[in-house]
This record gives sequence, structure tokens and C-alpha cells, in this order.
Amino acid sequence: MNKETIKIGILGMGTVGSGVSQILAQNGKDMEHKLGAALEVKRVAVRDLAKPRGLTLDPSLFTDNIDHVILDPEIDIVVETMGGIESARHAITKALENGKFVVTANKDLMAQHGMELLAIAKLQGKNIFYEASVGGGIPLVRPLKFCLAANRIHKIMGIINGTTNYILTQMSTAEKEFKDALAEAQAKGFAEADPSSDVEGRDASYKLNILASLSFSSRINMEDIYVEGITNVKLRDIRYAQELGYAVKLLAIGEEGEGGLKLRVHPTLIPHAHPLAAVKNEFNAIFLEGDAVGEVMFYGRGAGSLPTGSAVCADIMDAARAIKNQIQNGIVEATFVHKPVVPMEEQLSRFYLRLKAIDEPGVFAKLATAFGEARVSLDKIIQKRSVEQTAEIVLVTHDVAEGNFTHALDSLRAMPSIRSINSILRVVE
Amino acid sequence: MNKETIKIGILGMGTVGSGVSQILAQNGKDMEHKLGAALEVKRVAVRDLAKPRGLTLDPSLFTDNIDHVILDPEIDIVVETMGGIESARHAITKALENGKFVVTANKDLMAQHGMELLAIAKLQGKNIFYEASVGGGIPLVRPLKFCLAANRIHKIMGIINGTTNYILTQMSTAEKEFKDALAEAQAKGFAEADPSSDVEGRDASYKLNILASLSFSSRINMEDIYVEGITNVKLRDIRYAQELGYAVKLLAIGEEGEGGLKLRVHPTLIPHAHPLAAVKNEFNAIFLEGDAVGEVMFYGRGAGSLPTGSAVCADIMDAARAIKNQIQNGIVEATFVHKPVVPMEEQLSRFYLRLKAIDEPGVFAKLATAFGEARVSLDKIIQKRSVEQTAEIVLVTHDVAEGNFTHALDSLRAMPSIRSINSILRVVE
Repeated sequence: MNKETIKIGILGMGTVGSGVSQILAQNGKDMEHKLGAALEVKRVAVRDLAKPRGLTLDPSLFTDNIDHVILDPEIDIVVETMGGIESARHAITKALENGKFVVTANKDLMAQHGMELLAIAKLQGKNIFYEASVGGGIPLVRPLKFCLAANRIHKIMGIINGTTNYILTQMSTAEKEFKDALAEAQAKGFAEADPSSDVEGRDASYKLNILASLSFSSRINMEDIYVEGITNVKLRDIRYAQELGYAVKLLAIGEEGEGGLKLRVHPTLIPHAHPLAAVKNEFNAIFLEGDAVGEVMFYGRGAGSLPTGSAVCADIMDAARAIKNQIQNGIVEATFVHKPVVPMEEQLSRFYLRLKAIDEPGVFAKLATAFGEARVSLDKIIQKRSVEQTAEIVLVTHDVAEGNFTHALDSLRAMPSIRSINSILRVVE
Repeated sequence: MNKETIKIGILGMGTVGSGVSQILAQNGKDMEHKLGAALEVKRVAVRDLAKPRGLTLDPSLFTDNIDHVILDPEIDIVVETMGGIESARHAITKALENGKFVVTANKDLMAQHGMELLAIAKLQGKNIFYEASVGGGIPLVRPLKFCLAANRIHKIMGIINGTTNYILTQMSTAEKEFKDALAEAQAKGFAEADPSSDVEGRDASYKLNILASLSFSSRINMEDIYVEGITNVKLRDIRYAQELGYAVKLLAIGEEGEGGLKLRVHPTLIPHAHPLAAVKNEFNAIFLEGDAVGEVMFYGRGAGSLPTGSAVCADIMDAARAIKNQIQNGIVEATFVHKPVVPMEEQLSRFYLRLKAIDEPGVFAKLATAFGEARVSLDKIIQKRSVEQTAEIVLVTHDVAEGNFTHALDSLRAMPSIRSINSILRVVE
């Protein structure tokens, strides 16, 4: 028997929840036509019933008791847009145990407890959909699960945090320092009042966890991801990078190689000709390499009420289709293995290094010797005219193990003729 | 009851068919793990049994009789990679009528008879999957059907022909004329011996038909698409375009506006800052604007054995899931309406025009008057130093109706001081 009306309960009516409600009001009829079933928002749980909301939803649908949504036997799909970890985890678990399909936009939760929630869903013969948890409206979860399912993915590289991409773009195009670009991003609504999760790379690391789990079919712990933010990136480095043919982006990188998975988030020099280098301002993009498909990239708005709402609504439609078609156990691979992770010090990277040295005969030879002894070979060198007997030197290495590079740095720091090591960034080709 | 082994029959073992067979040999185990069901190639129909094939498939699977595949009661999924129109149409129809799910990579067929085949599939409670018919391995059909299903798509713009993009990229970067760039593309395997379908834009128009049908939920006739190829694009125009801040790309453009659908394929000047301008060589990319998601772009290899095979294999997995879950009528909207189409002469375009005029006083005023009388306003003008009393003039207009622009051209052609009109291209911003 096909179900005629699919009933939805929504937890939270903030940025994402109101985007969902706006899209349902605007395009609901088309969505129903595509589904062959009606969609009805039956209940909305919010923390503060008194808060005024400029929404088309009937005020009588609102409740401040989550149980009124997740325990309502008529509700088929619970949409979690409340955010946070513990209360969302509890609500989703309870909703699944009560036979609901779940749609969530919660990246922190899916990165930390996704496997557990997927297992509960599988046990219940239901499913949890989380397209909106990464890349806003950009289709990523579904393409990885389905469109690219016949591929072994070797590598993913993504610009998956709009705030940092906006800041780095402004530093580069408007020649601003980090602090000023951040202030502008905050003024324009691209950065939050407390931007730490974005600028320190944590937000990107949660999203990398979700994408890498799907790409490599592995459980990933947050502590297996190396994370470095953009707070130390200087305008001076962006200028040197330009001169060397690179843009500077905060990249989330996942690779599967012989030794296991390599997972890292850090500011990165990427060649101007790479498609990711052209991704500007608040836009996101995810670049993948699969053994069959080759190189693929997905580009779009990684955040915002309507883009994220677009992904949530697509998930609502998928859940509705599963209900309509009475699909049990629609979950693809809830039981990921736990693949080994290559420790950061064993990973190979190319490095960009900016330092100041005393401009005297033999300094360059000493530098080169220190690198040679640590088995670090150099690819590019820029030395600018010296000021007050101090030369600024910029180096780009070939691939080296992070551990060897650290040794080379230790030697440099011990050399009296090296005044300061000012910047260390990684480079991809 | 869940089916344990899903049996596949393949029609044709050319570029795409052998890609599919290679991926199944390479990644089949992973695919089966993700599906929770085994996949078995049971029969392969080819035209010439004697042709040597360097494949892992058991020679005993091969037949030269299509009926041995499409009438085999054990075969669940028929994969059509034989190409052509009538015999493929006949085979797919018969396969659907015999209760098979169908996967096809055939763009010509889906563009011309897709609606009919989808209707037959719906009637049979089966489905036809055609991700590989457009954009090679780039996920497009599934994102349009599912990931972006909550959006109204206003506009799609795509570089969906790798041959022409390779040629235009080479003209631009290696400063070659069309003829030489085509010869190089042929030598490198990016263009066929008979390149007419690619360079004249027909291949792109078939793909636009498929993408626009999905984007705008409308049936589209091939004659409703304006098609212009790249054979008349000159290196000189690409250089002027560069100078004006544009790249030249063969774009397939679909828009839905107040008057209906606008559908066209033509060489186009597109600003360097647009993400499509960075799509080089044989790569494809499709840029979309949805009312919720905003701007999205999908990028990758639009052709080739393995990339196209990747899409076919994803479709095989989707068909297998439908069989495993016993989904009947999984088709989303087989019954598209037929939306009105705005005739080309009523569409608005910006134009790039290169002409030669006698370098004498008053010529510019005459030109400007002719444009003004036809209600064409000008945005940009370049005039280079004249040679032998002949000035080369390049103009870019604001948006004008194609009909008005044609009137302006007629006036120019009648002016004795205009020696020749050398190039007319369209511009998007």
C-alpha cells in the first residue's frame, strides 16, 4: 500500500529549519508532484515558543517539547536542524527507535557519532540522511554513495569552509591581512562572532571526517585528522605564493594509499591552474579522484539557509520515497571497517618556507647543507634584496616526510645566521 | 524475498562496454559489498563474434544475437552500449517489455526517444537509467532528479562537448587556428575522424535536450534547440575576447523564463572570472542556478571508456537496488509536460561583432546610428590601428533581441563604408 501523505516533524527553526520551511512553502507542490505523495509538516519543536518567527507555518504546529515530535506516531520523518551534540544525538536515537526516518544537517554530530546512528537506523530498518551536513546545497553525500559507487576513490581535496575561503580570497584580492579580512567577513555575515571553529579548521575537519568515511568506506576518529587553521597565514605569504604560481586555500585532504588513510586540514599552496584555485569567496568545492571516473569536482554554496535547506529537502524526498516504496534497510554500508591511518609525521608533503637570514657569504650553503643532511630537496627558491643586512628567503621543497622536514627545521633554528623562521605552509601540485 | 544474484546482459562491447566490463572486473567485489547482492554478467551481444577482445570476460558469454540477451528470462538488467538509434530503441523497448531494467549510455536515443522509453518503462513497472548519456562520469542525471529536486532550476550552462572544448583551449593557449587545433585533437584521440557532430554542436544539443528536460521537467524537441558550432571561430576572435576579459567556450544554455524555455548551443564569450571559463581541454562542466541552492557546478571528464563506464556501473547498481528492494514504478516524472519554447529571434543576447570598415571620417557615427536605429546599444568598442585605410572594429552590445540585432546587421551590410562583417559571437555575463 502506498502512503498518500508523508508527515514531517522538524526539530529547530533556526537558519536551516527556516530555509526548509521556506522551500516547502515555495516548491512543495513540485516536490509532491515528483514524489507522487503529499508532504505535510505536522509538528515543529523549538526551544522558545515566544520567539517571533516570520514564517508561513501555522503557529499551532509549534511545541517546545521535542517528544511531541519524535513520539508522535503519525510523524514519518524527523528533520533535525537544532544543532549541538548530546541533545540532537538523544533526539535522533529516540526518533529512530520510534520508527522514524531521520534527516539531519548536523556535521558535528555525524562526524562524531555518525556510525553509531547509522547502525541504530539499520537495526530499525530505517535510514538517516545527512546530505546537508557537508557542503551546504552541493550534492556530495549522494554522489559519493551512489553516483561514484563503482569507483575506488584515491583522493579527495576540498574547500569545505566558506568563512576561511572568503577570508583568504579577500586577503589575496584586496591585499588585506588576516585580522582585517576576518573583520570584513564578520561584517558581511560570512563569519560568526566567535569564528574559532572556522578559522582554526575544526569545522572543515568534521566535514572531512564525513566525506572521507564515505569515500574510503572507513570509520574515522576525529583525532586521526591533522588540523591546522589559517590564523597564521600572512598577506606576505599569499603574495609570494602568487609569485610562485599558487593560490593559498584551506584544504581538507583525504587520501588512501598503501600505508592507509591520510587525513589533514591545513592552509595549502595550490597551483593557479588547478580547478580548486578558481573557487573564490564563500564558495565551496570538492575535488575527487576515482580510479574509473578520473577527476571530478563539485562546486557551490557550502552554507546558508536556502542552500542547506535545499539539501535537507532533497533528503526529505529520499526518505519519503523510501517510505512510499516500503524500503527496509536502505542503508549502504552502515558497517564500515576501520582502516589504518598514516601518522602525520610519516606523511609526505611539499613545504613552503619563509625565513630571514643574515646576508653574509656562505649562508646559502649552510642552508642547503642543513636541508641536504635532513634529506630534504629543494624545488624553488626566491631571495629578495636584503634590508639591513637581512635577506628574506622563500623555499619550496620537493616531497619530504613531515618528520624529516621537522629535523631540517631544528637544524635551521640552531644556525646563528638564521634570524627567524616566519612561515611554514604545505604545497600540493 | 531479496534476490541474491543480479544478472546482467550487455549489448555492445565497444569503448563504453569494455569500460563497464573492466570496472566490474576491478571493483565488482566492492560494488557487491555496497549492494548486498552479487552481480553477474550473463550474456554479451556483439555484432562480430570473431573480433578479438582483450577482455576478462569468458568468451562463452558472447553471442551475436541480441535476443539471447533481451529475451533471456534470467537476465534482470540489460545494459545498452551499442549506440545508434533504431536498433537500440527496438532492443530497449523489447527488453523493457520483457521485464528488464535498462541502463543506457545512448544520448542520441535518449534525446530523441527518451520520453517514449521512460513511458514504456513506467508501464512495465521498470525503469531506464541514463546517467552515462550526458557528461560521461560526471554525476548529473541523479543530482538533477534527486539532489536538486526541491529546486526550481532557472538556468543551466554547460561545456558538454570535450572535443570542442579541447579545440578552443588549444586555439587559446597554443595560438592555433581551428583547423590546426582540430587536427591535433584528432591526433590525440580527442576528436573523431568525422568530427562534424562535435564541431557543429549537434552532440552538445542532444545532451542539452536531456539536461534541460530534467531541469525544467519538460519534453523538448530537437528542433526547439538553436545550434551553432565552432567551425567559424577564429583565433583572432579568441585574442580579442581575451583582451575584453572573456574566454570563448561552446556553451549549451537552457533557461526557463516568463515566456517559456530558451534552448541554445553556440560559441560564447564568458568572463574569465566565471567558473566555466576555467574548464580546460577535454574537461566538461555543467553550471546550474536553482532558486534554493543558488549556483552549483559539476566538473569532470565527459567522455572516455572508464569515466563513462563509471556512470553505467552506478546505474547498474541503482537498477540492482530497485530489483533487490522490489521497487515498482521507481520513475520520477515520466510524464513531463511540454513547456512553450521562446523562438531564437525573440531571445535576448549580447553580441560580439568584428568587422572591417573604411577608415574615413564619420564611419563610426554611421555605425552608431545604424545600431541606434535598430535599438541595439553598445557596451564595449575596440578599434585597432588601421591597415591600408581599413580599420578593424570590435563591438560588444548590451542585451538585444536576436531579431533587432539581425536588422542592425542588415543596415551595416548595406553601408558602403563597411568592408566586411567577419565574426558574430554571443556573450554571457
